[in-house]
Order: sequence, then structure tokens, then C-alpha cells
Amino acid sequence: MKLEEIGEFGLIDLLRRRHLSGGTGVRLGAGDDVALLREEGGGLLAFTADMLVEGIHFDLSFTDTFSLGYKSLAVNLSDLAAVGGGGPCWAVVSLGLPPGFEVEAVEGLYRGMAEIGGEHDCAVVGGDTVRSPRGLLVNVALLGRVREEDLLPRGGATAGEILMVTGALGASALGLAALLRGRGGEPEFSHLVDIHLRPRPRLDISSTLRSRGATAAIDLSDGLLRDLGHICEESGLGAVVEYHRIPLPAEAENAAAALQADLPSLVLGGGEDYELLLAVRPERAGELEGSGTAKAIGRLVEGSGVTVLGPDGRGMDTASPGWDHFRGKP
Amino acid sequence: MKLEEIGEFGLIDLLRRRHLSGGTGVRLGAGDDVALLREEGGGLLAFTADMLVEGIHFDLSFTDTFSLGYKSLAVNLSDLAAVGGGGPCWAVVSLGLPPGFEVEAVEGLYRGMAEIGGEHDCAVVGGDTVRSPRGLLVNVALLGRVREEDLLPRGGATAGEILMVTGALGASALGLAALLRGRGGEPEFSHLVDIHLRPRPRLDISSTLRSRGATAAIDLSDGLLRDLGHICEESGLGAVVEYHRIPLPAEAENAAAALQADLPSLVLGGGEDYELLLAVRPERAGELEGSGTAKAIGRLVEGSGVTVLGPDGRGMDTASPGWDHFRGKP
Repeated sequence: MKLEEIGEFGLIDLLRRRHLSGGTGVRLGAGDDVALLREEGGGLLAFTADMLVEGIHFDLSFTDTFSLGYKSLAVNLSDLAAVGGGGPCWAVVSLGLPPGFEVEAVEGLYRGMAEIGGEHDCAVVGGDTVRSPRGLLVNVALLGRVREEDLLPRGGATAGEILMVTGALGASALGLAALLRGRGGEPEFSHLVDIHLRPRPRLDISSTLRSRGATAAIDLSDGLLRDLGHICEESGLGAVVEYHRIPLPAEAENAAAALQADLPSLVLGGGEDYELLLAVRPERAGELEGSGTAKAIGRLVEGSGVTVLGPDGRGMDTASPGWDHFRGKP
Repeated sequence: MKLEEIGEFGLIDLLRRRHLSGGTGVRLGAGDDVALLREEGGGLLAFTADMLVEGIHFDLSFTDTFSLGYKSLAVNLSDLAAVGGGGPCWAVVSLGLPPGFEVEAVEGLYRGMAEIGGEHDCAVVGGDTVRSPRGLLVNVALLGRVREEDLLPRGGATAGEILMVTGALGASALGLAALLRGRGGEPEFSHLVDIHLRPRPRLDISSTLRSRGATAAIDLSDGLLRDLGHICEESGLGAVVEYHRIPLPAEAENAAAALQADLPSLVLGGGEDYELLLAVRPERAGELEGSGTAKAIGRLVEGSGVTVLGPDGRGMDTASPGWDHFRGKP
């Protein structure tokens, strides 16, 4: 069977069922944002990796290598944030470098990683540099720590809990739309482009969320609906989202109009904002919202599947937005 | 400056000098086989990664994906062996999958990793699957443990110590030569091809070596001269190797003749045997050799550079054999 027939998430399901189970000292295996391993001192180690491939994940005509280095570490730090982790962490970086690549561009990658690493006490401690026949390849493997009492697995939610998001959604997708239309340099899109090229992982709050009432989390990398789907599947629940409650960037409406982009598609399916989607115990949600940490957008319900309600209270048509690596975007 | 001008090891030197230094809890950073991090319980975590790229590191007309999965984990386990590590360990696997790739081939990769993982208590605990525009990409990141008292850094050697190797050298390069000439299926090459496709990391002995007199180690991945060069550089020493003392596979001479291959080049520069090269205190070398664990091939001396003595006791011409990823093989 070809990968296109089964899709990215079909493949991951199959690998999890048949090939990824257990192991000595494993607290949480494949299927969450990170794997969790028991540390000798009693803590938990979080272990994750992301591969970025030129022509799939980035276009060097839109991004400089500094930003690419920044983002390649950011997306891993975001996985650490998504399970409630924080504190010092370490990265091992594998680079596949095409013929004729410039040494200065490689240094740019490392400077970008050092920039965001410095913000989060994350050191690049090693790696591998190999030749790539075509196109730049960047794989970052990250090792960090999560305290058991801060842990936010995808499957921790209960029916009746409140869905909340940190920050605003759709900024990255709008920034990408501006870049794709050759308008990334225009000042009205600069904040959006910045979020797309250099996303900020939410390690500033991640380790506080469980003590503030969160029970489950995921980082918004594949798009709200897709990522919410993962929380629902892992928690054995359904969800209802009220579209008009989703926090948007201040410039979202104007930017979408200027770019002739369909804003709801970008907000629901665009991905790459690297904010956190949380399930929160109802009695604690007001507190999180009052402090400005997160905003309620819906709730978890018995059953399965995600319903999005439009401003009129009726279900919106959301035919599976979100990124699938082998099928592409619908 | 282009990468071809500086070379793989020039780039690594530059990155180490300018971009990779220190970090919270780092015992040993970039430049050894693994990075070593202090664990909360007082032990050491070994963290490493290797990227394998189709068309550079492997050819799917020579290897099935089972063997490729086996090898992709083996080369990382070998890095763990090279620092004296052992015991349970964990891998996170990033796959870049080209269009039209078969699900069964992906499952073969995982079966190969499970095979060698089962031999060494190593579980694949997570990863990333992405699309690759062309060619299969496999990155394995490995996390394991080393006890401080077993640690074998590259830079631990002293002048006067004995150079020893475990196992036989040149088998992998001869196996590759047989495959490249379309003769991989012939019985006389089957052991050599097997070593090339499914190398055996020396985790069976790695954690015992320091207590048996070893002071420094590296795994033989890039070729004896190149890897010995790393030990010399990190230890601030030179080395003398006696070619006729290097242990060869029983079939080496016949195979080299049949393949019209230059045996000394393959033995000194071929790489990928994934045996260990050790520096050993002189008074302990006899014991290691007597037990069949390793064989003396030379010694470490004051100064710098590697000299190889031929059977006549004169220096052999060894114009830089060994693999450089950006310059290719001389």
C-alpha cells in the first residue's frame, strides 16, 4: 500500500499499534508530543525530534537560515511546552547540506538556534553533518525535563472541561500567505510573518498550567482542528468549538482581506502558531482567562469528533482542514 | 565560503569553536561520539544522532529496509558503545518519506530497528514522519547511559599507550565493494555483505573496557586512519600503526583479489566496521589481547599525525583515506 492511501496519521496509527510499544523505563511512548522516560533521580525526561525538509517545510527564498535555525529549535521546544515541561534542555542537530551550500549559511542556522536556545536555557550539544544530494535537511532532537506534577498528556481531558488557547491563532498562516503572495516585506504583515518565521514556544507558562487547572495539552502545529482531534482521540471525547470565541491577531481581518485569504480556514486549519490548546477544569477556567493566560473557545463533550459553531450557533462546514504530510492539504 | 572548500571536519571544527560550547549540565559537548549530560540521580546521559540520506549513505537497490532500519539504529548504538555506555536506551526516529513509498517498506524499517533494539534493550519511543521530495531520509536520535567510571572519551589517551582494535577491519568496505560490483549475492562475500548491511555495535563489551585498562575509544565509522586521527587530535598525541598487525576477516585477501580491490585502502580508510579503536594502558594490553577482546595494532606517541608502518618497517603512503562528507573520498 502506498503512503498516499493511508495518510500521515494512518501511518502513525499503524506504527503505534504494530511497532511502538513499551520499553524499559518508558512513562509515555509514541503518540504524544514527546516520549517520557523515567530518570534515575525520579524525574521525567522528555525526548522528541522534528525533521524540517527544504521544499516541504521551508523555502529559502522566504526565510534566512537564522530564522530557520530559530524555528527548527522552536518547534521542538514547543513540544516540550505541550507536555508541561521547562527548565534546561539540550538539542542534538543533524544537518543534511546540499552541494554548494555556504558555510556562512550554516553558521546562520547555529546563530538562530543559539538565539532561541539562550532564551530557554537550551544548549546545542552535538549532532551530525552529512551531505544531501538536493535541498537542506534539518533534524533537531531535543531532551528536556517535565516534573510529574506538571505533566499534561494529550489524553488527560474529561467531558465537561473547557477548551482554551493561549495567544492568538492564524497569525502564522496569514504570515505564510503574505510570503507566498510576495508581500512578506509589507509593514502590515510584518508581525504575522515574524510569527511564521520565528514562532515563540510557550515555555514561559507551560510548567504552571497543570497547577492552574489544565488537564491536557497539545501545541498548535498542525492546525486547531487537527490538533484538537488528537486531544479528543487520546482522551476518548468529542469537542464543540465556538468560532467567534477564538482569539485572532488584531490585524487578522484586514490582512485576510488584503491577501484574499479565507480567514476561518487559516484559523481552523492553518497551524504553526505554536500556541497551546488546553483542556481545563471548569472551575479554574475563569482564573486562567482573567489572568490573560488563555481564552476559552469551547468545551469537551462525551462522544467523538469536533463540531465548530459559527456566529449563528449552527455548525460550520470544516471539511478536514489541517496538514497531512502524505496527502497534503485538502 | 562553500562547504567543499572547508570540508566536513573543517566545518565541524568551526562550529565547535564558534557555536557549540557549554550549557547547563553538560559533561561533554560536541566533538565526541556522544554528548554527555548530568542526570539528576548523578549518572550520565549519552545523547547522539545520525542522519542517513538515500544516495549518500545507502542505496535501496543494495539494501532492504529491514537492514536499513537495523543499521540506522546500529550506528547510533555504536556511538554509545564508543564512550563506554550500555544498558537500556531509547531512540526517536525521524523519517522523510518520498512520494509513492510503500507502507510495507516503512514497516520493514521499524522491524529492523526492533530486531537490533531487542538485542540491546533499546526501544523506539517516538519520532516524526514527514514527506521528502526525493529519496528516503532516516534520522535516529539515541539516548542512553554511561557510568562515570566506565567513560571512555576520545581525548583520554596518553603517550606510550597501546592502540588496540576489537574484531576485524575492512569487512564492511569489502562487502560494499562486492555490492557495488553486483556480486553481493555470491556466497564468498556473504559474511562481508552482512557486516556492511547489519553492523554489530560492540555494546557487548563497551562498559567493561575502562576497568580493563582502556583510557580512550572511538567507534570505527569513518575509517581507521580518520578515526585514529580524532583520538590523536583530542588527546594531543601522534600514533604509529603497524599494518601487518591489523586483524582482517579470514576471507579478506581472497575477496580483495576477486573484487580487484586495494585491501590496504579498504582496511585503513574504508570505515563502517563499527568495531572499537582503543587506547590501552601498556600493562593491561596483554590481558585484553589474551582474552580475545582486542588486538594491539600500534601505539600512541608524543607529537601529532599518524604513521602506518608496512611489513618492511617503512612508512606506507596513506594519502588521507577516509570519508569526508563534503569532499567525498580521495
